Amino acid sequence: MTRRQGSGQASDLVQRLLAGDRWALTRVLTFVENGYPEGRQALGELFSHTGRAHIVGITGPTGCGKSTLAGALAREYRRRGAKVGIVAVDPTSPFSHGALLGDRIRMQDLTSDPGVFIRSMATRGALGGLAVATNDVVTVLDAAGEDVVLVETVGAGQDEVEIADTAHTTVVINIPGAGDDMQAIKAGILEIADILVVNKADQPAAESVYKQLHIFMDLARNEGWEVPILKTAAHKEQGIVELLEAVSRHRAYLTESGRLEEMRRHRARRQLLSVAQRMLLEGVLAQARENGRLEELVEAIAARELDPHTAAARLIGGAAQ
Amino acid sequence: MTRRQGSGQASDLVQRLLAGDRWALTRVLTFVENGYPEGRQALGELFSHTGRAHIVGITGPTGCGKSTLAGALAREYRRRGAKVGIVAVDPTSPFSHGALLGDRIRMQDLTSDPGVFIRSMATRGALGGLAVATNDVVTVLDAAGEDVVLVETVGAGQDEVEIADTAHTTVVINIPGAGDDMQAIKAGILEIADILVVNKADQPAAESVYKQLHIFMDLARNEGWEVPILKTAAHKEQGIVELLEAVSRHRAYLTESGRLEEMRRHRARRQLLSVAQRMLLEGVLAQARENGRLEELVEAIAARELDPHTAAARLIGGAAQ
Repeated sequence: MTRRQGSGQASDLVQRLLAGDRWALTRVLTFVENGYPEGRQALGELFSHTGRAHIVGITGPTGCGKSTLAGALAREYRRRGAKVGIVAVDPTSPFSHGALLGDRIRMQDLTSDPGVFIRSMATRGALGGLAVATNDVVTVLDAAGEDVVLVETVGAGQDEVEIADTAHTTVVINIPGAGDDMQAIKAGILEIADILVVNKADQPAAESVYKQLHIFMDLARNEGWEVPILKTAAHKEQGIVELLEAVSRHRAYLTESGRLEEMRRHRARRQLLSVAQRMLLEGVLAQARENGRLEELVEAIAARELDPHTAAARLIGGAAQ
Repeated sequence: MTRRQGSGQASDLVQRLLAGDRWALTRVLTFVENGYPEGRQALGELFSHTGRAHIVGITGPTGCGKSTLAGALAREYRRRGAKVGIVAVDPTSPFSHGALLGDRIRMQDLTSDPGVFIRSMATRGALGGLAVATNDVVTVLDAAGEDVVLVETVGAGQDEVEIADTAHTTVVINIPGAGDDMQAIKAGILEIADILVVNKADQPAAESVYKQLHIFMDLARNEGWEVPILKTAAHKEQGIVELLEAVSRHRAYLTESGRLEEMRRHRARRQLLSVAQRMLLEGVLAQARENGRLEELVEAIAARELDPHTAAARLIGGAAQ
């Protein structure tokens, strides 16, 4: 009975979400983020309404001005009449829980604009959960009719690379003077860049980072798309129009070259595997918890009687019986 | 026949590794990182030899001087006769592939010291692979008789939180002047700190970060261990003795309070679940690839006929038959 109510509730919320109801959107996102059955059902119903939004990943080191840049870009999209979603996956983001009062005040014009929807994601959670949850949140915002979804993450590590898989266009931000210049330019993160931005370009040291990025990118292979290197001063809204135009050019390139279609398939595969992985583990765990097998194996590893690989094989074997 | 050779080879390598052979250690790590069956076998044989090393996580934003600090700390441990392993999970680390010549030269005294073993990890890989691989590499170094293993990662995102689970003591580095000061102090990352370090403390702005950290930590809950806030200037080897002593005090606290035992169990659980998750997915994929089911489902998601959750359920259901 509860299940049927839940199921009816989800369908009702989905209809309201598709009709533009922001409250319904918030509710669906909560269901989705928490992995509730209603969230899964909503995703199923919403999925055929997706594929229209342009997803822009914005990444860079802590303190590089990601949120300010995302905010400025959102304002520029709003001036052009586009609906904007912002997903903040960065614990230091003003959009995120850890925000300071000052940051929140600076963002107030955005949070009070009905054409901007902001969602913060926790960066802690279940194994492999963040990338899955981010994908799902982006899917919901896409179905809700956002024209552009900005996904803001701290640039480092595997999370970001996985989240870059979610994005059509990945903007990587660099800043002058964060430690040794060349060390601040991260080889791993440059590889995922479709557009490079030197933010805080009003600082004198910016020119040096800009030149180094040019040298670095000249060495990189160029496969159809030449990565533009732009200068911005997001807190003064400088260079934002150029950034928006670079995003649009990249979108056009993706469509014309057939890369968008490839990305769609690539992203489908990643999503399938991430979700399957989590589902499989949940299934095995539910059973292993019930019969006490999980605790036995944990104890055996802690006591160094079993290595984790052997224990995992037994966990899986036991659940399959 | 190949399998038996492989199996014999792994056992032989394990014996040589336990006897202190560095070449055997390198080989075993390669097997382990690549997920070869020989690596899994070696882990099984080595596991009962682990549990002695103290694992120190070192994390912080890009350009904060992590590698320099890890290097300085390693030198101080060497002066005290301890064997040190360094695992670099940061693409910008001089220990890592992306290193510049100058960084490598500065680290030369470490790389030529037979009492120091350095291993770099790629930050890209299979889903959930990095945390699993890092755990496995640390396990091998522990078994190889390192007294201390320093695990160096960029501080942000879930990877680092998972890798912090590997460490007994987590050192979080902050630096002056990386963007807005308070924004550089990351709420999420502070939560995992056992020791806080203000590196580059010879810079004038350091005092402000130091004070802000004190204010921040005074607000935090204190559960038995008061997180020390230290000042270092790693490139001048200043404050390193104090850092080493703080690590030793934390180790003593963990042992006396029973926390070390709790961590062992917690870590065992994480390792078991990470490995099981990867194993489960590999099993399902092997079958789905063979019968073409995987490509069918990927196409259906790409065409928006099926959402990823429904497709994943079919993938798992299909493999179970």
